[in-house]
Amino acid sequence: MSRFVNMTNRNKKPFILVTNDDGIMAPGIRALVEVMKEIGEVAVIAPDKPQSGMGHAITINSTLRIYPSSFYGVQYEYGCSGTPVDCIKFGVNKLLHRKPDLCVSGINHGSNASISVIYSGTMSAAVEGAIESIPSVGFSLCDYRIDADFTASKVIVRTIVSAVLKNGLPEWSCLNVNIPPLHIDEVKGIKICRQARSNWVEELDERKDPSGNSYYWLSGRFQNFEEGNEETDSWALDNGYVSVVPVQFDMTAHQAIPILKQWKFGIMTKP
Amino acid sequence: MSRFVNMTNRNKKPFILVTNDDGIMAPGIRALVEVMKEIGEVAVIAPDKPQSGMGHAITINSTLRIYPSSFYGVQYEYGCSGTPVDCIKFGVNKLLHRKPDLCVSGINHGSNASISVIYSGTMSAAVEGAIESIPSVGFSLCDYRIDADFTASKVIVRTIVSAVLKNGLPEWSCLNVNIPPLHIDEVKGIKICRQARSNWVEELDERKDPSGNSYYWLSGRFQNFEEGNEETDSWALDNGYVSVVPVQFDMTAHQAIPILKQWKFGIMTKP
Repeated sequence: MSRFVNMTNRNKKPFILVTNDDGIMAPGIRALVEVMKEIGEVAVIAPDKPQSGMGHAITINSTLRIYPSSFYGVQYEYGCSGTPVDCIKFGVNKLLHRKPDLCVSGINHGSNASISVIYSGTMSAAVEGAIESIPSVGFSLCDYRIDADFTASKVIVRTIVSAVLKNGLPEWSCLNVNIPPLHIDEVKGIKICRQARSNWVEELDERKDPSGNSYYWLSGRFQNFEEGNEETDSWALDNGYVSVVPVQFDMTAHQAIPILKQWKFGIMTKP
Repeated sequence: MSRFVNMTNRNKKPFILVTNDDGIMAPGIRALVEVMKEIGEVAVIAPDKPQSGMGHAITINSTLRIYPSSFYGVQYEYGCSGTPVDCIKFGVNKLLHRKPDLCVSGINHGSNASISVIYSGTMSAAVEGAIESIPSVGFSLCDYRIDADFTASKVIVRTIVSAVLKNGLPEWSCLNVNIPPLHIDEVKGIKICRQARSNWVEELDERKDPSGNSYYWLSGRFQNFEEGNEETDSWALDNGYVSVVPVQFDMTAHQAIPILKQWKFGIMTKP
């Protein structure tokens, strides 16, 4: 089952690509790079500005730039004008001398659990790594603040990355890791979960510009349809656990195929 | 199994929200609106400019504008400065007097089959409709040209939308419909499929600006890992069929959960 096995020679350090969606200067990616430098050879290719909520967007209608950076003292280090997914594409197809053994994204400032996985640039970068057959993990701390404390997160990142390098990942999947905003001694453990069914009820806050014309800010309220369900990532986080959800890029709703195959489309039905 | 049943009274026309990712002025959405006006009451909320490749991006770091439009002669008609997903959120949470009975997206100029579903703004709009519990379908014609011929597509759209309104959609899913660039008499039928395993090998075409600095265009080559597999959407399209793939927004790789539950995380393992 493990096509995504650890491709590194055990005597050699793994080659690790680090990205995020909060931008190359965010404290969360700094914490992630610090841990990865203890574990392997690190390349950082991350957006040159915040790219939250970019989902799986790629840049095809405009051009891309890359800028060498020297924040982290590693061999490969670039800011990219594009999205988190663009960063992975740049790394794999252009900038790096070989395919990374591991791709990590984050640590995001804020939760990417439940339905947020689909809007998240952090997680979309990890998904893109998986599409490229690279074992990939997205990390998020459930604390939006720019001065969030990543001390406990660093312990958890080290634990999970060690397990991924040891075990490999099940094929066609990456991991969505969300970390509750707790001291490490308060964290109850790491829990394997599924994505909770939920949505965002949007506010679309209307304001007036100096000319009196309307503009809007998208902001919303999270709505969990599975409150209290212990299998879900939302429950794990609400109860002091780190949630780990395996995430796939096969979007097919397989269970729906036999239902649809009974439909009649008249002359257009497949003979 | 059908939570997403046809919510309309059979004596009343369905209320249909139309969007796309090529922008409100694209010929593809015009063709789609023409067919929907025959079937129901139509609202058009679509990006005010091309938004291809935007995936499930939402606009949270900048503001949004909406502009009343009068191309289509329908009650609700707006261009939106945001992404296709923003358009659905605007419709559901702000602009429309009631929840639509159906959401359709497209007709995209170009294929959104196989792995392209995840990068596609067209399909992400349909997925967002499904997240909002609205039966939703994304349509794409496998012809990138602005002057593509939508004559056959209109017949297929009418057939599929009629079936969706009659049957409802299996719960937690929407449809990804891709149409081969053929005359209607050459189309072999409608085939229910799954997403083919594939990726894009990116080129990142490097050019120099007038100052001699590098910039890049992302462009790629589609790579199908399941050539010849008759269950896949790629095979259907290559062989003259319309492909219909049910698409879900639960990103959980459920088959990976039992594997991950065997992992040991030391003191961090859930007791």
